[in-house]
Amino acid sequence: MKVRVSVQLKPGILDPQGKAVEQGLHGFGFAVDHVRIGRLIEMDVPGTDPAEVKAKAQAMCDKLLVNPVMEKASIEVL
Amino acid sequence: MKVRVSVQLKPGILDPQGKAVEQGLHGFGFAVDHVRIGRLIEMDVPGTDPAEVKAKAQAMCDKLLVNPVMEKASIEVL
Repeated sequence: MKVRVSVQLKPGILDPQGKAVEQGLHGFGFAVDHVRIGRLIEMDVPGTDPAEVKAKAQAMCDKLLVNPVMEKASIEVL
Repeated sequence: MKVRVSVQLKPGILDPQGKAVEQGLHGFGFAVDHVRIGRLIEMDVPGTDPAEVKAKAQAMCDKLLVNPVMEKASIEVL
């Protein structure tokens, strides 16, 4: 099944990448605030039961995909 | 209004980052395929009309946020 993991910085964590993009957009004259950059991970996980697939994806997040100190993730089974 | 832009590589474009993550997951014993990594951009765009805000976000994508040669974007006004 296809799984989408959205990984974002936790609120309050400084986002230099977001700041850089925000300044770039301001430079082009766009009014925008609080630009935050995260990761979008899509993958095919074997399985037919969405709950089981989601659990596998959560295990992958815990093991490799997400830094629990600074990041939070939401998992969607598509 | 809060806008979320999901930027992903177009199908067929090689994703070395995705490959690296896929191999890492395989190394931990996870069965997973077709890992693709994209960007998730969240930002506050001034405006009250969702269509107008979405148009502004599209202009930002065209100007700075998305490489149209290799990437595609989907815009959600939250």
